[in-house]
Amino acid sequence: MELFIKMTIAAWNTQNARLNKLVNTLSNEQLATETAPGRNTGTYLFGHLIAVSDALLPIMGWGEKFYPELETIFLKNPDKSGLEQPSIETLKGYFTTINACIEQHIDTMQVADWFDRHTAVSAADFANEPHRNKLNIMINRTNHTSYHLGQMAYLASKADVG
Amino acid sequence: MELFIKMTIAAWNTQNARLNKLVNTLSNEQLATETAPGRNTGTYLFGHLIAVSDALLPIMGWGEKFYPELETIFLKNPDKSGLEQPSIETLKGYFTTINACIEQHIDTMQVADWFDRHTAVSAADFANEPHRNKLNIMINRTNHTSYHLGQMAYLASKADVG
Repeated sequence: MELFIKMTIAAWNTQNARLNKLVNTLSNEQLATETAPGRNTGTYLFGHLIAVSDALLPIMGWGEKFYPELETIFLKNPDKSGLEQPSIETLKGYFTTINACIEQHIDTMQVADWFDRHTAVSAADFANEPHRNKLNIMINRTNHTSYHLGQMAYLASKADVG
Repeated sequence: MELFIKMTIAAWNTQNARLNKLVNTLSNEQLATETAPGRNTGTYLFGHLIAVSDALLPIMGWGEKFYPELETIFLKNPDKSGLEQPSIETLKGYFTTINACIEQHIDTMQVADWFDRHTAVSAADFANEPHRNKLNIMINRTNHTSYHLGQMAYLASKADVG
């Protein structure tokens, strides 16, 4: 794997490993709590990140989403929408399944594949905006995970996070 | 500029532009508030991110820090350490100065420079760990900014952030 691709994927893996560690450190009660008064719960943010990862599959041309129902619950609607959310244990299983699938697809990617257009950009637009490629999706999604991970860190007691 | 470097730098610029927009949208009173009960204030996190950006200069071999005194206040000590913090207006000025300097240095970097080792890794370690280069520093610092930006977003009223 080319070094710069390796670095991009390593950053993605690092943020997902941190997320995995956090959700397995917190109790279900902690995860169900608001990250700050009136803000999203940990469960919602975890579901939101899983839904975004699931949506990587079609956008990268890797296949269909595993759990398309997550889009309505965690992307199109806010927390406390009244929609039923999967249990935390169910979400943890989804997270493992999706990440394992993403990892397998990453292993098959050649350098040129990463610089190919993702499925949400047209060939015409891509001709003018070659940065709208699959590697850029990974860069942006990694920062998206970091953003919400910073919020979810507030679920841990201050003694845990230092 | 090579496309993958352009993408990495674009991500860095995007997160810094978001941070800049946020701190200029919030009042000084909002910025001085805790991002969540008992957590870091916006001022501290802003100072922390500025201190980390200032430290980019030596680690990238771009020169000395502009404001080395920030390290004690915002990196080595927690918020509410009792140490006097620069005013928010002063911090905004620092942020502008440091970012302008970083931008100038980025413009001078050649592809090979980005894959050169940063100053915090020895030549011996770098031989075995070639990913510990300057481009990787930018990738990791961008995610670090995203992490705290997610927390600082809690300073805005919910109406502002949607």
